[in-house]
Amino acid sequence: MAQTKVLFVGSGAVGSFYASVLDFLPGVEVSLFCRSDYETIRQKGIRVESVLRNRHFHPKQVLSYGQSSLQEFDFILVCLKALPQIQLQSILHTYVTAKTCIVLLQNGIGAENQVAKEFPENEVLGGLAFTCINRLAPGFVQHIDYGQLNIGSYSRRNISPAVQSLQQLFESAGITCQTSANIVQARWKKLIWNVPFNSLSVLTGGSTTYELLQNPHTLRLVKEIMAEVMALSEKEGHLQQADTIETYIEMTAKMKPYKTSMLLDFENHREMEVEAILGAPLVVAQRHNMKVPHLSSIYALLQQLNQKNTTSSELLPTS
Amino acid sequence: MAQTKVLFVGSGAVGSFYASVLDFLPGVEVSLFCRSDYETIRQKGIRVESVLRNRHFHPKQVLSYGQSSLQEFDFILVCLKALPQIQLQSILHTYVTAKTCIVLLQNGIGAENQVAKEFPENEVLGGLAFTCINRLAPGFVQHIDYGQLNIGSYSRRNISPAVQSLQQLFESAGITCQTSANIVQARWKKLIWNVPFNSLSVLTGGSTTYELLQNPHTLRLVKEIMAEVMALSEKEGHLQQADTIETYIEMTAKMKPYKTSMLLDFENHREMEVEAILGAPLVVAQRHNMKVPHLSSIYALLQQLNQKNTTSSELLPTS
Repeated sequence: MAQTKVLFVGSGAVGSFYASVLDFLPGVEVSLFCRSDYETIRQKGIRVESVLRNRHFHPKQVLSYGQSSLQEFDFILVCLKALPQIQLQSILHTYVTAKTCIVLLQNGIGAENQVAKEFPENEVLGGLAFTCINRLAPGFVQHIDYGQLNIGSYSRRNISPAVQSLQQLFESAGITCQTSANIVQARWKKLIWNVPFNSLSVLTGGSTTYELLQNPHTLRLVKEIMAEVMALSEKEGHLQQADTIETYIEMTAKMKPYKTSMLLDFENHREMEVEAILGAPLVVAQRHNMKVPHLSSIYALLQQLNQKNTTSSELLPTS
Repeated sequence: MAQTKVLFVGSGAVGSFYASVLDFLPGVEVSLFCRSDYETIRQKGIRVESVLRNRHFHPKQVLSYGQSSLQEFDFILVCLKALPQIQLQSILHTYVTAKTCIVLLQNGIGAENQVAKEFPENEVLGGLAFTCINRLAPGFVQHIDYGQLNIGSYSRRNISPAVQSLQQLFESAGITCQTSANIVQARWKKLIWNVPFNSLSVLTGGSTTYELLQNPHTLRLVKEIMAEVMALSEKEGHLQQADTIETYIEMTAKMKPYKTSMLLDFENHREMEVEAILGAPLVVAQRHNMKVPHLSSIYALLQQLNQKNTTSSELLPTS
């Protein structure tokens, strides 16, 4: 049986975790492209402490900027943070060949569209990761909870052979992997949760999902923001179930108190994914001339907070 | 000439500063009611480091809970933070007599109404302080900039004799003191500035007025919030000049970069005046059934942030 060759782009929490999962399978060769942590991972590989199974592995190839690959990849899974300044296209141009299927496992909306335009001959998949993983140090991540994936073909809008084969890989490795004929709709659905909980967890000074539901003012705001994002989704032609908001609130109330990824980024003074999670839907709102006042105020706050939080600012003499 | 007897309630930055200013005048006896700092101020008095003039004084009487006064007061100036849990009425009942004029030098809206109901026989004035003062330690404040006052009679809606005589005192002491026939309108006008700049300075991680104007997203949000508060003011019958927003933006652009009082409270883990500055106008909006989406989202964020910031919360095990 031919080896399936997979390249993970990004050695953060998500990339490291799913790479370790696939590397474990016979018949799969996993390589890794690192933006940072290159030396550590080349020497020591990647360690994953997981509620499923602890793992330590050395990728077949550890690659970074300017290094070409010795082999062609069947799948390239992009697990980078969705930040405007990351030059994903140039990374992809180094490794994508005619046979490569490109899978975007990123937050927010809009990324598949750009990649599909740049690589019109390649199949582009979108994927959503529902999981709680932290990167504790270079080459060391901790998988705390969940792990399921949802993947779908952006190019074909059906359950394509590439989707089926990737699903099979993850399922063989013990990861629940759903498929969606309309991954963009699924992305919007996830966004309905992501926008309020990520934003409010940060803007309220580090609240957990639980705390945001406990306070009636923030609970109301969560629902109103969800309604704005849901209206945008439907305007884009991606209908959502009528009870999406209530279902999400109930589901979140049953989750363990949880710090969102945006809050973790904020607390560690890393750039937050403000553009992918809030900026992109705002652009959609502007295109349709729709009013989304909550989304718009929260975007402005987070956009400025992101700047303050990632630059080391001097305290003012006036105080 | 009879002595004018003045009681300042509150030994924070505003109370300490204006008390020191009036104490300096011949013919004025200044006493002080402290919620905290009582022992320090009784022993050492109050020191004010000021761009106008450094001062050190001992109030005629230093009072606290349960202590009655040896004299009746012509004016009681309330300089407490506008927080829901401060029992202002019971403090006032201890010291107000038939001849007392009560002056509320507090932020936000709505305070005069409550006091006037409780003391229908006394004249109630409202006052606005435009100044930049910090309390650095018990009994020690630093006056950095500005200092002008605007006072008016809430009870009489005209420039009453009490207003004129208080204005004269402050002007004699070198403090510019305007008067307003409609102090509630003046309060609303100040609120148009206070709501956006106080809130956004905190919610964006400690931005100065200058930074909020520099970022086009926060500048837009500042203007939109101002428009919401201005619409409320006018709905309440307090018309504002049509160019209020533009004038405020220009004025703020010329100010030194400035940390708002809410930001100072936040940074020092003190309770912020969320109810007086945002909650009170929201109640007005609800009464008129007016939509103020920005005000409402920002209130929810600050309300939760206030809780997080003033309680010492444990970090969660999940992170």
